[in-house]
Amino acid sequence: MIGRYDDVSARWGIPEKPVALSDTAIDFLTEKVGPPRKTPAVPRVNIVAPPSRLSADAASALANILGPDGLNTGDDTRLEHSGGFSYLDLVERRGDSPNAPDAVVFPASHEHVQDIIKVCGELNVAIVPFGGGTSVVGGVRPEAGPHAAVIAVSFERMADILDINEVDMTVTVGPGITGPTLERLLGVQGLTLGHLPQSWERATIGGYVATRSSGQASAGYGRSDEMVEKIRVATPRGEFRLGRAPGSAAGPDLRQLFIGSEGAFGIITEATLRIRRVPAETRYEGIMFPTYLGGLNAFRELVVRKAKADMMRLSDPQESLTNLTMAVEGMTAKALERYLKARKVEGGSLAILGWEGSRTQVHSRRDDSWRVLRAHGAVSLGKKVGNGWEHGRFSGPYLRDTLLDNGYMVETLETSTGWRELPALREAIRAAIKGALPSDGPGPWIMSHLSHVYDTGGSLYVTVIGERNDADLVGQWQAAKQAACEAIVEQKATITHHHAVGRDHAPYLAAEIGENGMELLRVIKNHLDPDGILNPGALIR
Amino acid sequence: MIGRYDDVSARWGIPEKPVALSDTAIDFLTEKVGPPRKTPAVPRVNIVAPPSRLSADAASALANILGPDGLNTGDDTRLEHSGGFSYLDLVERRGDSPNAPDAVVFPASHEHVQDIIKVCGELNVAIVPFGGGTSVVGGVRPEAGPHAAVIAVSFERMADILDINEVDMTVTVGPGITGPTLERLLGVQGLTLGHLPQSWERATIGGYVATRSSGQASAGYGRSDEMVEKIRVATPRGEFRLGRAPGSAAGPDLRQLFIGSEGAFGIITEATLRIRRVPAETRYEGIMFPTYLGGLNAFRELVVRKAKADMMRLSDPQESLTNLTMAVEGMTAKALERYLKARKVEGGSLAILGWEGSRTQVHSRRDDSWRVLRAHGAVSLGKKVGNGWEHGRFSGPYLRDTLLDNGYMVETLETSTGWRELPALREAIRAAIKGALPSDGPGPWIMSHLSHVYDTGGSLYVTVIGERNDADLVGQWQAAKQAACEAIVEQKATITHHHAVGRDHAPYLAAEIGENGMELLRVIKNHLDPDGILNPGALIR
Repeated sequence: MIGRYDDVSARWGIPEKPVALSDTAIDFLTEKVGPPRKTPAVPRVNIVAPPSRLSADAASALANILGPDGLNTGDDTRLEHSGGFSYLDLVERRGDSPNAPDAVVFPASHEHVQDIIKVCGELNVAIVPFGGGTSVVGGVRPEAGPHAAVIAVSFERMADILDINEVDMTVTVGPGITGPTLERLLGVQGLTLGHLPQSWERATIGGYVATRSSGQASAGYGRSDEMVEKIRVATPRGEFRLGRAPGSAAGPDLRQLFIGSEGAFGIITEATLRIRRVPAETRYEGIMFPTYLGGLNAFRELVVRKAKADMMRLSDPQESLTNLTMAVEGMTAKALERYLKARKVEGGSLAILGWEGSRTQVHSRRDDSWRVLRAHGAVSLGKKVGNGWEHGRFSGPYLRDTLLDNGYMVETLETSTGWRELPALREAIRAAIKGALPSDGPGPWIMSHLSHVYDTGGSLYVTVIGERNDADLVGQWQAAKQAACEAIVEQKATITHHHAVGRDHAPYLAAEIGENGMELLRVIKNHLDPDGILNPGALIR
Repeated sequence: MIGRYDDVSARWGIPEKPVALSDTAIDFLTEKVGPPRKTPAVPRVNIVAPPSRLSADAASALANILGPDGLNTGDDTRLEHSGGFSYLDLVERRGDSPNAPDAVVFPASHEHVQDIIKVCGELNVAIVPFGGGTSVVGGVRPEAGPHAAVIAVSFERMADILDINEVDMTVTVGPGITGPTLERLLGVQGLTLGHLPQSWERATIGGYVATRSSGQASAGYGRSDEMVEKIRVATPRGEFRLGRAPGSAAGPDLRQLFIGSEGAFGIITEATLRIRRVPAETRYEGIMFPTYLGGLNAFRELVVRKAKADMMRLSDPQESLTNLTMAVEGMTAKALERYLKARKVEGGSLAILGWEGSRTQVHSRRDDSWRVLRAHGAVSLGKKVGNGWEHGRFSGPYLRDTLLDNGYMVETLETSTGWRELPALREAIRAAIKGALPSDGPGPWIMSHLSHVYDTGGSLYVTVIGERNDADLVGQWQAAKQAACEAIVEQKATITHHHAVGRDHAPYLAAEIGENGMELLRVIKNHLDPDGILNPGALIR
């Protein structure tokens, strides 16, 4: 059953910000997927947390390290750390008997983390590092593996800014700091990290680094892995401090082994990230291309001509139709329709571009971009549409909750590939998902956008809304996920552009890095984590 | 003895382009270092190559794989592959009994390389991958280690373009292709890699990738490690194909383990690199800052304001004086002196900036840069000085040969650190070198420039010219090298920004990545190369 429960939230918002489906949205969903269907909530009183398996020895050793406030075996706290926001997580967490870690610990220092790792190794306890708990690929699902118990490590007490270096333009933080807190504290000094993934409201910096996450303005600010100057990591083999200087040729870059290691190689206890000055001017703009392929070519040409914006997003016809019907702020649907028709771009592809910098930079760079955009038949929808997107940039997860409450299956997946391969990749994924989700109704509604552009290609972010089979929630999802992943592998695209491997993508990693690559990861894992206590089941299965 | 020999060149140019010292240069050197002193050449007839230790079994197995043209044990070919261009290499290679590999092999395919590795593992033969042979840190010095013999692997027969993808904007090449060949072949299609290190005339792409090299226009084109999309690597454990897509979150980036592994983990047999269109406009410009620190602040501010150029180089007062006295093209010394005096920047710091792109881009970006430059008191020396630098951008190694011929010690070293730490780092290195090269004369002449700027700092490239102690060539160099490296480590800068670790920097790597980092490298090395045949002594000692 997919419902919700009251006290222990498995919904996105803290506090909740329920999104209601408008009549327009209900009509659209009914036409494209099927009618909504309210699914019942599970009251907290009906939720049974599994009993904690943490031994008295382990509990006492952990309490010794962390003090009385540092260890919590209570049901509510354990349920709050019972997983992330993957579809499988939600199916379970919104049900009546969710999984949960056997305890949650709250270290306050690198040394605490190092000591936790030592005790857990000795007492056969697995560890799941738990930042914002926003993984959508099962990366923080508590799994004891062959061990006697599993604990979640919260970084709530390691969430401070440790240093701001305004000359080198870096900030050093504890792993538990969230995007909003960091941006607020940097903002008072006119500084910004500029990393804004959709999970921004909840995710932590440690999680960004551990998963190679990518923010919406990655075209201008880079991926999280590119922002990391230095990391400090606690492992069963002891401490690593990596990242000596900007630009180094001192051998292999070992940072890049821990970045993206998803807690399986070690626990990030400190990160130094480069920061920027808050731009004086920010201009977001809605744009309409006559066709999706035309938009794709324009995006590529913007990159090739070094005329790109700092934020670039191109919706395919399905996503464009959805957004134009339901979600474009700043224009009524009717007015928009007239406007597009008059300019011969109706039924085309919607894009959002954002430029940041000084006033003159934004002006000249936007001009530069528009030289390319115009040549591809693009029409401006103005700042209002751009600002509307910016305003709603974090709304996806809230909407997902609402769709789940209304009886729909909803899932997202993402990948990236070269420019040449993008159109075929999109087609292959669409066909695979359609094939795996047979329907008597209008069938699943599949939409996607291109974002996160690179010199040689870009990422594809796919959203699927389908009729949900409550009799076989897991089986239905698995069939669709497997089909999509196999299509991605077949097309030689990456199995994940920014969601990471977690547990959901682990079966497909070998196809990406080869059996020799997997063996190398295992050798490194066995060296760093000889007892296999670090996030068992994630990354390497 | 440092001389030269005739037939087997240990000099830079192919063909040689001897640089004569002008009267001005001789006067300057005499004043700053001491008078020149011609050192005798070693004729080829006096050079004794060490006998080849390659066993008949190994020779026959290798010839079986490669055919008769694929194996060469002749003295001339072995001497040509007897090392790189480090000071120690040159001391030895320009002397009368240089070291040499026991054979040179010429594979023509990935499979050849894989088979060579197999045979060498079975027959106890070490392997040095030898690209352009331009290492200045002993990275290609043939060292058998505990093995019976050592062979150099040349990539002359793996030097083709395998694919140009003009949609994704990538080129796939064999490791042996050199910069000039690649740029010529790309250039006819209006494309460029844009990677121009000082070693460009000789170095190979495989070497760039194996050493994380950085080109002079890295501010615009990125470091070699950032250019690499995909690599194929042959190791004793078999093949690795890494780099699936632009932007991936599929676990640790294993590419970054092989990039910079300097032949110690595997041999790169193919690389796919991103390319760019040849810019329509290129503008290089000489600039004079009133002070070095003012120039440093301006460079930082250019980066912070996102107003940087594609090539940026700032000489310290010593290098500025040297260049202004000897080497600025496009202006006579007298005219220049008058010009600088009139603008109150005499005795200041010389910079070269270069912008590339479309005409409008170069125009607006240069304007943007100049807003910052002007605020820091910079004065333009015009395009001619910029073009003069560009014209002489590869001349350093030729000049080094001339200085060696004239009895000087000459060495370069490089590092990088954060903006805040750069001035102290420069002072510390200067003091360390001065201390280690005591002199009755004017002492060593130490000059440096800042180049390769990053968001959080930049690199420092130091040139030392001193009186040479021919009675203890190696000891003199070691004292200076050790003092400089210890100063770098002490200042928490990186031991190498783009020259790599090789053998010269290997003793200092532990200080940079920690003993736990070294142990991790050893675990990876032992897994990938269990017999330890790959470039023994390089990277990990």
